[in-house]
Amino acid sequence: MPRPQAHVFVCGQQRPEGHPRGSCGAVGASVVAQTFSEEIAKRGLFQQFAVTPTGCLGPCHLGANVLVYPGGHLYKTVKAEDVNRIIDEHLLGGNPVSELLAPEAEW
Amino acid sequence: MPRPQAHVFVCGQQRPEGHPRGSCGAVGASVVAQTFSEEIAKRGLFQQFAVTPTGCLGPCHLGANVLVYPGGHLYKTVKAEDVNRIIDEHLLGGNPVSELLAPEAEW
Repeated sequence: MPRPQAHVFVCGQQRPEGHPRGSCGAVGASVVAQTFSEEIAKRGLFQQFAVTPTGCLGPCHLGANVLVYPGGHLYKTVKAEDVNRIIDEHLLGGNPVSELLAPEAEW
Repeated sequence: MPRPQAHVFVCGQQRPEGHPRGSCGAVGASVVAQTFSEEIAKRGLFQQFAVTPTGCLGPCHLGANVLVYPGGHLYKTVKAEDVNRIIDEHLLGGNPVSELLAPEAEW
């Protein structure tokens, strides 16, 4: 693919149940990643936007973490139902969804 | 950590030996990721630069792939011995290492 206009990184870190740090994998990150991929494919936007799963992004207690570059905006506690809003407002509209962003102290 | 000045994503995709697409994992990506992390830690740069392993970034035949944001520069066939040059020239110096970049047609 050509260099994407925006690149969505979804943390896919898995840790065992009961692990003190928790993990994005334990709070639905795989569904979030899948929803991004499906929505972008469904809308024919796969040449513009890339979606890539990652290892740990850092603030595990805020998972599922989703990081969007080039701006480096980190979204916290993302659920599948937030995905279309991030696509519409941020990826297509150019305006990060401020109420879903991680606090500055964390990122 | 605060939002990093640059974020290094190292593909960690693993595929079985003999798989037709190959994989970054099969050509030393884990050593590349480890070398980035160690060098950045050794130089005390861990508040400025983040390193994160990822799933497949796309051009598997060019692995090990390393992607640096915010610029979205994709490095191809990266070896551990290329890491210091990318840190020095790109992360610290602000000039991507052009001879290591993936061709435009691929990214």
